[in-house]
Amino acid sequence: MSESSERSETKLLASYVVNASYDHVPADVRHEAKRALLNYVGCAVGGSRHPAAEKALKVFTPFSGPANARMLGRREKLDALHASLINGITSHVFDYDDTTPQNYIHPTSPLASAMFAYASANKVGGKDFLHAFVLGFEVESRIGNAVYPAHYDAGWHITGTAGVFAAAAAIGRLIGLNEQQMIWALGLAATQAAGLREMFGSMAKAFHPGRSAQNGYASALLAREGFTSGEYGIEGPRGFAAVQASRFDLSKIGEGLGSDFNLRRNTYKPFPCGIVNHPTIDGAIQLQREYRLSAERIRKVSLRVAPLVLDLCGKHDISVGLEGKFSVYHNAAIGLVRGKAGIQEYTDETVNDPAIRGVRESVTAIADPEITEDQAYIEVELTGGQIVSMFVEKSLGNIHRPMSDVQLEDKFRDQAVAALSPERAGALIAQCWKIDDLSDVASLVEASVPS
Amino acid sequence: MSESSERSETKLLASYVVNASYDHVPADVRHEAKRALLNYVGCAVGGSRHPAAEKALKVFTPFSGPANARMLGRREKLDALHASLINGITSHVFDYDDTTPQNYIHPTSPLASAMFAYASANKVGGKDFLHAFVLGFEVESRIGNAVYPAHYDAGWHITGTAGVFAAAAAIGRLIGLNEQQMIWALGLAATQAAGLREMFGSMAKAFHPGRSAQNGYASALLAREGFTSGEYGIEGPRGFAAVQASRFDLSKIGEGLGSDFNLRRNTYKPFPCGIVNHPTIDGAIQLQREYRLSAERIRKVSLRVAPLVLDLCGKHDISVGLEGKFSVYHNAAIGLVRGKAGIQEYTDETVNDPAIRGVRESVTAIADPEITEDQAYIEVELTGGQIVSMFVEKSLGNIHRPMSDVQLEDKFRDQAVAALSPERAGALIAQCWKIDDLSDVASLVEASVPS
Repeated sequence: MSESSERSETKLLASYVVNASYDHVPADVRHEAKRALLNYVGCAVGGSRHPAAEKALKVFTPFSGPANARMLGRREKLDALHASLINGITSHVFDYDDTTPQNYIHPTSPLASAMFAYASANKVGGKDFLHAFVLGFEVESRIGNAVYPAHYDAGWHITGTAGVFAAAAAIGRLIGLNEQQMIWALGLAATQAAGLREMFGSMAKAFHPGRSAQNGYASALLAREGFTSGEYGIEGPRGFAAVQASRFDLSKIGEGLGSDFNLRRNTYKPFPCGIVNHPTIDGAIQLQREYRLSAERIRKVSLRVAPLVLDLCGKHDISVGLEGKFSVYHNAAIGLVRGKAGIQEYTDETVNDPAIRGVRESVTAIADPEITEDQAYIEVELTGGQIVSMFVEKSLGNIHRPMSDVQLEDKFRDQAVAALSPERAGALIAQCWKIDDLSDVASLVEASVPS
Repeated sequence: MSESSERSETKLLASYVVNASYDHVPADVRHEAKRALLNYVGCAVGGSRHPAAEKALKVFTPFSGPANARMLGRREKLDALHASLINGITSHVFDYDDTTPQNYIHPTSPLASAMFAYASANKVGGKDFLHAFVLGFEVESRIGNAVYPAHYDAGWHITGTAGVFAAAAAIGRLIGLNEQQMIWALGLAATQAAGLREMFGSMAKAFHPGRSAQNGYASALLAREGFTSGEYGIEGPRGFAAVQASRFDLSKIGEGLGSDFNLRRNTYKPFPCGIVNHPTIDGAIQLQREYRLSAERIRKVSLRVAPLVLDLCGKHDISVGLEGKFSVYHNAAIGLVRGKAGIQEYTDETVNDPAIRGVRESVTAIADPEITEDQAYIEVELTGGQIVSMFVEKSLGNIHRPMSDVQLEDKFRDQAVAALSPERAGALIAQCWKIDDLSDVASLVEASVPS
């Protein structure tokens, strides 16, 4: 084949990212990008004090170049590459960030972590930022779609492996790479695509999007300098797809590129725990609100849930906050008693709160194969003998029942309270919604810093 | 299984590295370690001005922390993590570094690149250094042995993927990690194991050992701080071996650990290119010397080589120096025309030299399954019609025909001339041979700097 007629997905993506025009991004996609960024910033601020971030910060601060990049939600600065790493850890460490269900990627963490670090140290206008985000999201999603499910099933943490391409593409766009440089940036990303699912349950899981953000960013900088990679990093016979997936479909990379935006398939978690608990929590909250339930009024709770729920979240006797995330009994109790399930509902204090504990101990659950993983049935016997119940057909946050903008704002505030006053949280939310009007995105990053 | 009876190769290696005693390293292994380091330092000094290193240095200097680590052969300093990266690039960029034929790893580059960077910034005695090197080499080799050949055949650049474990283990030993920390260091290494063979022929190939050195080093630092990874990074169901090799044999990790040292199977390249070319070059040089060949006298060249040679080095139409390393046709031509294959035979100039090009274009090669990877058959038809030929049974540098200490010193001088005076080169060679007597290995690194 001659070079001009040669099919290359790497070149196709590079050409798209280099040449795409913001005017061609539909309004609904722009809005969804803002929703993703709002959700991301809330997660990064919410996780900004997590021990994993503190430890990484301590390790890498002596290796940081001149500190001109702010990390979201923190007072310190590092160089922009290290800030990318820390942003990636903080935004993913609570497992509260977004998910594209068609490929299980948590797409925004590796991408926006690099972008906000870059924008903190370099002037970037809001429209350019939002556009580069849309492009990076598309590159990441399409590469992920091409290798999913074989790649994920094999044990790759696809958020790390696909995420590094997102960061390379978006930073590459912001620094103005040409097509050849963008091909190299994607190639250098391909050859750093890493992250094993064996790390789930340890700090290393959140390290993956962080390192991907940092490595993708570095790939773009190297490519600008003419540091070469192979030309076919994605599709070559020894490239990413062939090496890291036993089955893949490269046609998914180009299909509908520029018109079919993967941001339209992004979802946001309403509750900071394993997604299999979400229908139960959702139904419990609805019951609490409808009947103004309180711990004193609840005598007994019966659940019918998908069998996987009890496999993953069958812990009854718990005493530590983190265990609450893996107990459907706890999740039913907090929904029924507090009418919410935010960060504060998974603290040691809440888990040991006598009112919560009392209701939790009254909950029984049956694994019912007729119930899907999006569904749950909850029946509550009140102290007066009355029985109230709720069947959840499609859980909130599901792609068919997305969180509203207002619900995303509530989620943001619930997380931001760890670092920011309500006023500052509100101002930061406002900046996220109008990010495309900002003359310099650094102002948004600055607004995330505790006063 | 109870924890104590649970089989874990990660724990086994961690325990070995943490507890091993220098007194148990046999004298021949210590000497082989010095040979590996001598060869490495020559390669790093020889590659210290390569454009790939210059570009990486330019990109990362603004992101370096306080510059307290010297890179081999250079006047600048960076922080020790970035110095690791640059050392890895310079030492591998000419493809002149060592090889363990049983797993195709270039073992010293990712390992010593981190170690010399560390030792430049932190005081390390020579015996501790040599011992940590032996241990890192062992970890890297054993993990590589366990996943080879499926891992390499799939397209992984095993120097990058196994190398990150070497750096983590050696730096972890030098900074005094305990067993739990060492398990995390190896886990963090596992989840950063990357590098695709698709990058061969580009600067990204040398980036692999550099990034592995840097990432392995960082893994050790993170682990010391209590940044956790999964406990079974190597052998877990979603760990390195299962995810990155379709077939593997974990028993190779523990077998003979502490008595069977892989350093005994290390080899050194007499020629700065892919090892599969060496029998061809060796034979071509012998023919050139025996028949005083020149380009004008050569009409046609026919090779019979192992099939892998054409898989890896089948590039015929080349125009860039680096591509020459991956062209058995070019390698035959330089041997036959110049009677040598040193650094100068892989420049852009040589690749485009009309005499070399002419002979190269006359070369045909047949993949012959009867020819082993240590062998080559070369037949040359001279312009007068005469046919001369050579069969190489065991190539120089082969494990059964190792380079002598004196040949290694000659190779060192041939490379060092790019940066050092003959006197300084000689002094540096002396330091390598007596590294175990040094009170501070930083003095060796300083001796590599051009005056």
